[in-house]
Amino acid sequence: MTSQEELKKQTGYKSVDDYVSSGMVVGLGTGSTAYYAVERLGQKLKSGELKDIVAIPTSIRTKEQAESLGIPLVTLDTHSKLDVAIDGADNVDPFFNLVKGGGGALLREKMVELAADKFIVIVDESKLCGGLGPTFPIPVEITPFCHEHTIRTIAALPSCEGCKAVLRMGSSSNNKVDGDEIAVTDNGNYIVDLHFTEAIKNVPKMAADLKALCGVVDHGLFCGMTTAVLCAGADGVTVTAPEKKNKAEKIVKNMAFLSAAVGLLAVSTMIIRKR
Amino acid sequence: MTSQEELKKQTGYKSVDDYVSSGMVVGLGTGSTAYYAVERLGQKLKSGELKDIVAIPTSIRTKEQAESLGIPLVTLDTHSKLDVAIDGADNVDPFFNLVKGGGGALLREKMVELAADKFIVIVDESKLCGGLGPTFPIPVEITPFCHEHTIRTIAALPSCEGCKAVLRMGSSSNNKVDGDEIAVTDNGNYIVDLHFTEAIKNVPKMAADLKALCGVVDHGLFCGMTTAVLCAGADGVTVTAPEKKNKAEKIVKNMAFLSAAVGLLAVSTMIIRKR
Repeated sequence: MTSQEELKKQTGYKSVDDYVSSGMVVGLGTGSTAYYAVERLGQKLKSGELKDIVAIPTSIRTKEQAESLGIPLVTLDTHSKLDVAIDGADNVDPFFNLVKGGGGALLREKMVELAADKFIVIVDESKLCGGLGPTFPIPVEITPFCHEHTIRTIAALPSCEGCKAVLRMGSSSNNKVDGDEIAVTDNGNYIVDLHFTEAIKNVPKMAADLKALCGVVDHGLFCGMTTAVLCAGADGVTVTAPEKKNKAEKIVKNMAFLSAAVGLLAVSTMIIRKR
Repeated sequence: MTSQEELKKQTGYKSVDDYVSSGMVVGLGTGSTAYYAVERLGQKLKSGELKDIVAIPTSIRTKEQAESLGIPLVTLDTHSKLDVAIDGADNVDPFFNLVKGGGGALLREKMVELAADKFIVIVDESKLCGGLGPTFPIPVEITPFCHEHTIRTIAALPSCEGCKAVLRMGSSSNNKVDGDEIAVTDNGNYIVDLHFTEAIKNVPKMAADLKALCGVVDHGLFCGMTTAVLCAGADGVTVTAPEKKNKAEKIVKNMAFLSAAVGLLAVSTMIIRKR
């Protein structure tokens, strides 16, 4: 095993060791690092270190791996609430926004990971970037009806400025052109990959604008979902997490109210003085 | 022809007479009143009163009617911009919000009508209501994957409070239970009909919340799209249109800025006086 592969293994194992305990409903992602998380979960269930776990896989591949390890599987239809989901990402920016869906399963991954209390992202350092866009195209799942119109509408969005929208051809599970037919997702939809040469300016805005568009089913921008990123790098596994912003937001809101109140008070005082 | 049918005909004819002129790209809707709009367009093209029209139908039924009348047809893929779209609605509220999609074609109708400069709604007065919800269920198109989870998530939205979410069974083209199989739309999705006993409090908020949800493709709430409503009633055809709100919104915004500026000025003045 190369040292890079060994680090991926450490990262996957650590995600299970640190975030999974007995009795949990666990979302299992797909990818070269997530593979080791699934492996670790299987080990710990077999040894009896973990008990009463049920898992929801986000792909057929992970489903098969989990089944081979004897991990009990359920679906969102019976379990709408997960304690934790563990998955990789195609790109991670400094604000913990992710790009996912290079493999074409963005809708299923997003649905499972949105339903989780904690979402643990496991990657190697090649996935980290200063800004989303230039290093990995953003996949958008669209309905087949009048898809050329939808692609033009997406490309015309101000928040997607500068993108080159490319309809995915061949296999839906990668963004290379590997066939003559339009790629079709598991949900019967098409995928358009948005290529950028410069970093996207406002990722959450673009995410909201895309989802709001008629003809768009969902997209591969995962914003505000990350609980922690476990990253395999040259120096070992590093763990980073977004700051809890709720407090900061409250303070800003309170200050705005205070400013308004002071303004009103000042005006009132002036009026009273004038009389 | 009954007087009610005669009124529908007048309404459909008037929509073409008042809003369609030569050279236009026209969206053609479906329904008992829209039928007469298509008929009128065919007449006027045949007589030569209208020339150089191309039309985009929102359903197979309308496509066939238009073809039989010799109306040249195109799609959104070649014509992304329509001059006018004419269609019916299942419900219209006093704020010109619509419910559409009882017939299961909400996505295609919305895509065509969003692309139109003007959207003319033609209905009879049975479609008018004081508030959306109780008189016609709101259809929501969802992806089949884990649809039970998606239905629960929709029902739990605060803006959908009080709704009973019912998965459409049998034919997708009506909201009656007329079969044992889950109804599938032309886009390969499911439809859940949201039944309300009380009027929806904030229709645009509910519309935005629904569309933003992972697993929701689109929904039958059409907000802020209506240019005019032509309504066949006992007293003939009435035309109503939303007030242009842009000016009012600008004034409100300007007043907010002004208030803030006055507040700041007052505070500054007080500080200067104190010195």
